[in-house]
Amino acid sequence: MKSIYTGKTKDVYALENGNYLLKFKDDVTGENGVFDPGANTVGLTLEGAGRAGLSLTKYFFEILKEKEIPTHYIDANIEEATMTVKPATVFGKGLEVICRYKAVGSFLRRYGMYAEEGQPLDAFVEVTLKDDERQDPPISEDALDMLGILTKAEYTVLKDLTKQIGNVVKNELAKKDIELYDIKFEFGRVGEDKEIALIDEISGGNMRAYKNGSYIEPLELEKLMLEV
Amino acid sequence: MKSIYTGKTKDVYALENGNYLLKFKDDVTGENGVFDPGANTVGLTLEGAGRAGLSLTKYFFEILKEKEIPTHYIDANIEEATMTVKPATVFGKGLEVICRYKAVGSFLRRYGMYAEEGQPLDAFVEVTLKDDERQDPPISEDALDMLGILTKAEYTVLKDLTKQIGNVVKNELAKKDIELYDIKFEFGRVGEDKEIALIDEISGGNMRAYKNGSYIEPLELEKLMLEV
Repeated sequence: MKSIYTGKTKDVYALENGNYLLKFKDDVTGENGVFDPGANTVGLTLEGAGRAGLSLTKYFFEILKEKEIPTHYIDANIEEATMTVKPATVFGKGLEVICRYKAVGSFLRRYGMYAEEGQPLDAFVEVTLKDDERQDPPISEDALDMLGILTKAEYTVLKDLTKQIGNVVKNELAKKDIELYDIKFEFGRVGEDKEIALIDEISGGNMRAYKNGSYIEPLELEKLMLEV
Repeated sequence: MKSIYTGKTKDVYALENGNYLLKFKDDVTGENGVFDPGANTVGLTLEGAGRAGLSLTKYFFEILKEKEIPTHYIDANIEEATMTVKPATVFGKGLEVICRYKAVGSFLRRYGMYAEEGQPLDAFVEVTLKDDERQDPPISEDALDMLGILTKAEYTVLKDLTKQIGNVVKNELAKKDIELYDIKFEFGRVGEDKEIALIDEISGGNMRAYKNGSYIEPLELEKLMLEV
């Protein structure tokens, strides 16, 4: 097992059979000790955050598998905080795909002239480049195509999958009276046929979730979602 | 004649017959005395800049008229530095539509991970909101539609007109061995039938133009383009 990447919140190892192992860490993104799913820095370390994030990821990825929505997921070992996944290549140097149900965060910072805070958005999809140095700039369908990152046909698939998966998560949260405000995903070309599929994770660190008007921290969300 | 708006580079007056008069000022956008077409502040005042900008605007608007590309233009009085235009309403609180032929400026600041400085772009169109407070954020076709600023059908018309007009300007400049790097336009719904049409101006202040690899200041560009 060969270490091939050390990320902000997880490490990646190559397995001998061609698959990969993701090790979930206890670090979460944020600034100055405050969690922020949109941040590019590790803000704090929370005991058990890795296993909790993986538990929720496993939960959602297994629902997606049942619904035949493509992902890189093979299986997970909660004790070890590891997930086995199929090989994937990202688009360009990596994209984040955001699905929004409420106008908050960077959406509101950009479009506050036209949107009220918390205004409902109908599974609005936007793409940003993973580029810490340039603060993850938003990028249009036309620019993605022109810069050779994603064809128009691939963009359509990506947007459609994003809405489908966003709605799965939104509906699961709603069963616990939790409201999804927004969520970010990563996609890649997965497996031998290079199918466009969800990669990375779906955990509290990827989304903003609220209950009775109060924001729910990632660890609390994972507890609320997985308690029986 | 009633003053209805005082802008950074021009003032607007309502005429009794329902049309409007634009008075071109000698102020140009920029910062600290340096011209920058993308700036939101008046950077310097140049004697004769208003008349020069209007002369070039008249030149291009009359070519567009011949080509039956819709604009708000009626006529111009160079001595008075005024242009008479049809009434127009802008989209939302105003948009800027940019057509790019070279990767420079804010495009490069955002997408520098994927583009080289000066790399050719094929009449790439992007839209930004006129919102000084939020640094004129770029906005996607989907967001324009969702926020009620522009329908998808209107976006298609806008993008098509932008490429047509950008190419007219590019070809006119090329006749004087001048290369157009990028240009920004404003559009509105014009006249009784609310046709989508070019409004505002087409002057040196709206574009980046180069000759033999050197940037040409607006006043110099207007001189080069209009000298006989």
